[in-house]
Amino acid sequence: MSRLNDVLAHIDAQQDAALERLFALLRIKSISTDPAYAAECRACAEWHAKDLASIGFQAEARGTPGHPIVVAHDRSAKGTSALFYGHYDVQPVDPLELWEHDPFEPKLETLADGTKVIRARGAADDKGQLMTFVEACRAWKAVTGSLPIPVTILLEGEEESGGPSLPGFLEDNAAELKADIGLICDTNMWDATTPAINTMLRGLVGEEIIITAADRDLHSGFYGMAAANPNYVLARILAELRDADGRVTLPGFYDGVPELDPALKAQWEALPFDPKAFLGAVGLSVPAGEKGRSVLEMTWSRPSCEINGMGGGYQGDGFKTVIPSKASAKISFRLVFDQDPHQIREAFRAFVRARVPADCKVEFLEHGAGRAIRFPIDAPAFGQARDALSAEWGKEAFFIGGGGSIPVTHQLKTSLGMDVILAGFGLEDDRIHSPNEKYNLNCFLKGIRSWARILDALAK
Amino acid sequence: MSRLNDVLAHIDAQQDAALERLFALLRIKSISTDPAYAAECRACAEWHAKDLASIGFQAEARGTPGHPIVVAHDRSAKGTSALFYGHYDVQPVDPLELWEHDPFEPKLETLADGTKVIRARGAADDKGQLMTFVEACRAWKAVTGSLPIPVTILLEGEEESGGPSLPGFLEDNAAELKADIGLICDTNMWDATTPAINTMLRGLVGEEIIITAADRDLHSGFYGMAAANPNYVLARILAELRDADGRVTLPGFYDGVPELDPALKAQWEALPFDPKAFLGAVGLSVPAGEKGRSVLEMTWSRPSCEINGMGGGYQGDGFKTVIPSKASAKISFRLVFDQDPHQIREAFRAFVRARVPADCKVEFLEHGAGRAIRFPIDAPAFGQARDALSAEWGKEAFFIGGGGSIPVTHQLKTSLGMDVILAGFGLEDDRIHSPNEKYNLNCFLKGIRSWARILDALAK
Repeated sequence: MSRLNDVLAHIDAQQDAALERLFALLRIKSISTDPAYAAECRACAEWHAKDLASIGFQAEARGTPGHPIVVAHDRSAKGTSALFYGHYDVQPVDPLELWEHDPFEPKLETLADGTKVIRARGAADDKGQLMTFVEACRAWKAVTGSLPIPVTILLEGEEESGGPSLPGFLEDNAAELKADIGLICDTNMWDATTPAINTMLRGLVGEEIIITAADRDLHSGFYGMAAANPNYVLARILAELRDADGRVTLPGFYDGVPELDPALKAQWEALPFDPKAFLGAVGLSVPAGEKGRSVLEMTWSRPSCEINGMGGGYQGDGFKTVIPSKASAKISFRLVFDQDPHQIREAFRAFVRARVPADCKVEFLEHGAGRAIRFPIDAPAFGQARDALSAEWGKEAFFIGGGGSIPVTHQLKTSLGMDVILAGFGLEDDRIHSPNEKYNLNCFLKGIRSWARILDALAK
Repeated sequence: MSRLNDVLAHIDAQQDAALERLFALLRIKSISTDPAYAAECRACAEWHAKDLASIGFQAEARGTPGHPIVVAHDRSAKGTSALFYGHYDVQPVDPLELWEHDPFEPKLETLADGTKVIRARGAADDKGQLMTFVEACRAWKAVTGSLPIPVTILLEGEEESGGPSLPGFLEDNAAELKADIGLICDTNMWDATTPAINTMLRGLVGEEIIITAADRDLHSGFYGMAAANPNYVLARILAELRDADGRVTLPGFYDGVPELDPALKAQWEALPFDPKAFLGAVGLSVPAGEKGRSVLEMTWSRPSCEINGMGGGYQGDGFKTVIPSKASAKISFRLVFDQDPHQIREAFRAFVRARVPADCKVEFLEHGAGRAIRFPIDAPAFGQARDALSAEWGKEAFFIGGGGSIPVTHQLKTSLGMDVILAGFGLEDDRIHSPNEKYNLNCFLKGIRSWARILDALAK
């Protein structure tokens, strides 16, 4: 007979210790995209290996060409095996001046409405989330001496920087890592009281372009209009990426993008989702993007094109009448259904090249690629996980689409043949990737309890 | 009888001392646009006041709401009086990594072709240039004990940052500063062996726009397409500022821009100017800008629109899937003939506002404004100055147009009713406003001799 209730009681009793461990983890500045933080990334991987070993996992931080990957096994149990994936790296913290306190000195805050939140870079994405699973395992081990099912934990350190090392690592260690089901805690709930499992994830193509015109910065008074201005060349390219109806103009971009199945569309339309509130929460009111598409469609089942960064010329205080030598931009495409990342990258590069004047140069940098993915929601594990979540939160969990891209999900599917249950406890207002990121304390504590229940349910 | 030959001989004998003084001046980091360098700007003004007093000027650095203005008088002579204007402030030095040595540690270098150059920020713009005049005065005073004509020297510290203090200062001190003719040394020669006087100068309107969409940075996976992206809004605005023929699209922009007088156009077409060499010198080959206009027209007598800086979102190493809250750009318009800076600023702002989505905000910052200007080349002082330059360089000096904007020229004309002789010794390859700025040693030394001759000529 299951010891689930004892485990849940243990989790409740050990809340403070779990929070203390999370705070220790949040203090490590594991910004993967900035080479200046490589040592912090390594320290973070080693922190996890030591912590998992203390629970009873066989754990180690393994070297890669980039940041280490943590692998930990506890396969003493029988039955359905699970591979849990999380990432210990975090986004950069700029603009730092918008943070209300040090992003790497976590604080427990009580908001005006009484909600308690953990405030720090990585609180939600993904340190707080991944620790919900680790703490659930710790509780099962503490109470029963074992886990309900065989578990491997895989923690990556390059999720926020395009994940170059992971695909090769998965292929090289396929036999060791393969399990019956994948588990990931890096997604959001439907809302603060309603759990959800993401069963559709968009893919991603990330591209950076650097346009060079003259071989030096020029004085705009002497060369203006006569010399190509890379800021202007870049602005024109970026502006032309969408048409007046908000559709992406790359030839072939919508190949492999069917209209949504009418039944699923009807289900989404029935969801308690208010686009005004969704935009209003961040100070906006007018849906941008494709005309005639709902906000849910645009963020779940339609592809996107966004300029994540751009810059050229003088950006400091005051004014400088310069025509810069270079201008650059970082652009991401979110992919759906059967869109081919390779084809879209090539279409984008051809589109850019066709718009660069003959005497200017363009350089392309690749920042990751992954296809969109959908999971079979009729499979038993999905039903067991949904029931476990519904029991913990007292509300039926939703199967939903998801706007973000988690490239590893696709890699687990193609390299290891695994379906993945994406159950996360983030909320839309967590400000991930932004200043003042937070994770609700309630999400953290009930997240731990949720995974304790899911591990139990998968053993049945 | 004029002592000109003695003065020229003295200048030649004192070259090393003049260069030493220039180097001391170039070591002062008088970057006016960056508030961090305010003390250096003040120190630079005081350096000049002390130096001019040592020559025998009544000199002082006077306070303004911004950086000090140096005023120095030596009016002991009779005859045509002159007001010389220069600016002691310099452009910022970023990107610093492109400098081959410290921009504020001047060096004398010998290029592959044997040319000797003074390398430092401000070497040409404007410290080296303004010191040609100061050294000419010093030589006259040393040899003869007086200047050939009454002279006032005015040195500004905000030319590179929109010059907010100067207009009020000129109006407040009009009676003190008014002279028969203005002299400015902040322009280029025709080429390294041919002197020139600029008799047409373009005006300038500088604008900065800051577009704010959401009230925080957003994750592009969750909000992509649905939320307005200020990078995209900005790119579209900037791209639409010019049409397919390179014409500026602001309504009314070309009001007051006549076709060039056929005689002047014919004279320009006869100038030994090679557009291919002009662009080729900076690594370009395709004239940008208005279709059907020559490079000289575009840079001398046509108005321009350039994006001097733009930025938004993540611009660091790696990738960050963010939709930023803000994006901004700095845009300058060069004005010709009777274009009205105020009207163009308003047309620009209306153009931008019409393209900002209803739920986004736009903020405008003003960075200077000045009308275009033309001088009466038939006036005696212009002929005297041209003859003096021709004598020094052994080649007839050209009357030319000029691409840059020197707002003070317009202020001297409107506030003080003065015509201005713009005689400078800069060269197109001086890299002003760019890394590795230089000033040819020959331009510096013959520039001093040129002013000695012009002072003499104006006394006749």
